[in-house]
Amino acid sequence: MARKENQTLIITDKNQMRTWAKSMRSLLNTIALVPTMGSLHDGHLSLIQEARNHSHLVVVSIYVNPSQFAPSEDLSTYPSDFDGDIRKLNAVPGGVDVVFHPHNLYDYGVESATDCAGMADVSCLEESGSSHETWVRVERLEKGMCGRSRPVFFRGVATVVAKLFNIVDPDVALFGKKDYQQWRIIRRMVRDLDFSINILGFETVRDADGLAMSSRNVRLSPEERQKALSINRSLSKAKSAAERGELNCKRLKNLVVDEIQEAGGELDYAEIVEQESLEVVEEIKSPVVILIAAWFGKVRLIDNIEINI
Amino acid sequence: MARKENQTLIITDKNQMRTWAKSMRSLLNTIALVPTMGSLHDGHLSLIQEARNHSHLVVVSIYVNPSQFAPSEDLSTYPSDFDGDIRKLNAVPGGVDVVFHPHNLYDYGVESATDCAGMADVSCLEESGSSHETWVRVERLEKGMCGRSRPVFFRGVATVVAKLFNIVDPDVALFGKKDYQQWRIIRRMVRDLDFSINILGFETVRDADGLAMSSRNVRLSPEERQKALSINRSLSKAKSAAERGELNCKRLKNLVVDEIQEAGGELDYAEIVEQESLEVVEEIKSPVVILIAAWFGKVRLIDNIEINI
Repeated sequence: MARKENQTLIITDKNQMRTWAKSMRSLLNTIALVPTMGSLHDGHLSLIQEARNHSHLVVVSIYVNPSQFAPSEDLSTYPSDFDGDIRKLNAVPGGVDVVFHPHNLYDYGVESATDCAGMADVSCLEESGSSHETWVRVERLEKGMCGRSRPVFFRGVATVVAKLFNIVDPDVALFGKKDYQQWRIIRRMVRDLDFSINILGFETVRDADGLAMSSRNVRLSPEERQKALSINRSLSKAKSAAERGELNCKRLKNLVVDEIQEAGGELDYAEIVEQESLEVVEEIKSPVVILIAAWFGKVRLIDNIEINI
Repeated sequence: MARKENQTLIITDKNQMRTWAKSMRSLLNTIALVPTMGSLHDGHLSLIQEARNHSHLVVVSIYVNPSQFAPSEDLSTYPSDFDGDIRKLNAVPGGVDVVFHPHNLYDYGVESATDCAGMADVSCLEESGSSHETWVRVERLEKGMCGRSRPVFFRGVATVVAKLFNIVDPDVALFGKKDYQQWRIIRRMVRDLDFSINILGFETVRDADGLAMSSRNVRLSPEERQKALSINRSLSKAKSAAERGELNCKRLKNLVVDEIQEAGGELDYAEIVEQESLEVVEEIKSPVVILIAAWFGKVRLIDNIEINI
């Protein structure tokens, strides 16, 4: 099971993953997990490199989780490039010990579960019989923003992350703060369910033009990408305004909305919320975060900026 | 931390519980967990004794979980006798290594969580701010029977068991099949969330008169207790009838209902369901279980019988 320099062990079977983790733990190794859906970009790679600073061993999971996509969403077109991902991982300084790449985490060897297996254009919403039926709900944090636009999203995210935690048994797990609401939900889940795992969040990695890195960016046309720069621009504008003393959230939100709409983006939401509870605020009195989702063509992008006043 | 013969280590702090489990695991011990709400009777004690056959070490948790009680339910009158429990545990052949007896598993050191802390006559239903908000839902199995009568019950049970699993990190956990729906829900949760824990179910232990042992039995008057014997009698009758060829569930249910009502019990539900999915069946074609809940005075009792045809 030893990892040679620049060579990553690929595990596809969950029992084999458990066995590896158990044997490494018995040798007193600590394990860091970086959960991903593949199509790795520099945002992922910086998380993965960071992971090495927090544990002896690094596991990266690559799994496009079907249960977080509603039937209307882009599961079937979600970008995928496993060979490319492995090449990138092999080039990470310090390397990666294991890539956990399961075929289907919802297949329990019972007939009726196969509906959910095929990664087809279905969510796991309306299953019956003995197929998967257990969901982790983080009831308040899952409600607004992305939770409003994507009704099964956070249910699916929290559940698959709980599954990965139980299979990989990490000491620490690393998440990007680009998915801010997700990061807060995972932290809350870990606290509330008493997982013995340290959840670390890291700053969003951006391209030179300011666009937050996302696996979905590859689906933007050059023109759409140009328009999408309005997201980060609008967030920076609002932050500057707040720092100059504009604390009224309605006016700050208008800055954001105008900038994105003028660029031709279709706003899904823009909210200014308290950083931990994600409760909407009307006047900035303590640290907040501005969270945005917007459509450019057929691509939905999210981004955010913290304002620590 | 060593346990002397007939002396049980009592741990009230969850971090201390984790530390103990981790250190025992590093010595390659396996751990069995028997989750209880205290007021131990011979049903519990036989589970605890059985646990010794499945692991090196035995942990018994004693925690009356407030989140599984609705505000209208009997949290405040639920029987409690910690000193008596410890005496009983010290007398178990082979003994118990740890009693995990936390004060409050929903206190995360944040102000707003204290509402839920005091074991007062409230459920954790309507909390806000940064208090507990994560719930494990086993969406199909939690719906019928006790789930219909007790709306937050299985949500609370699944969640607290997930918490105990994450704190104690057992290899095996033992449950009584008297709480049949609960047992099925825990098994399903463990499968769906990929807990690496073997869930074992054991037969209901009965008093000499046939009444299923329950911590709530102490609250029955002698007269109510006499009436309550109709539960087990009715189940045995229905099972005999099925074994003699009566496979129509409506007629079998009538046998049960009549017996209990004639004795003066108030039926909450009587259902004949498939053993794993707990789906209601109309005609017995494969193994089923009859599940009953009924009130005798102010005490609600449950019981069941498997019919393996």
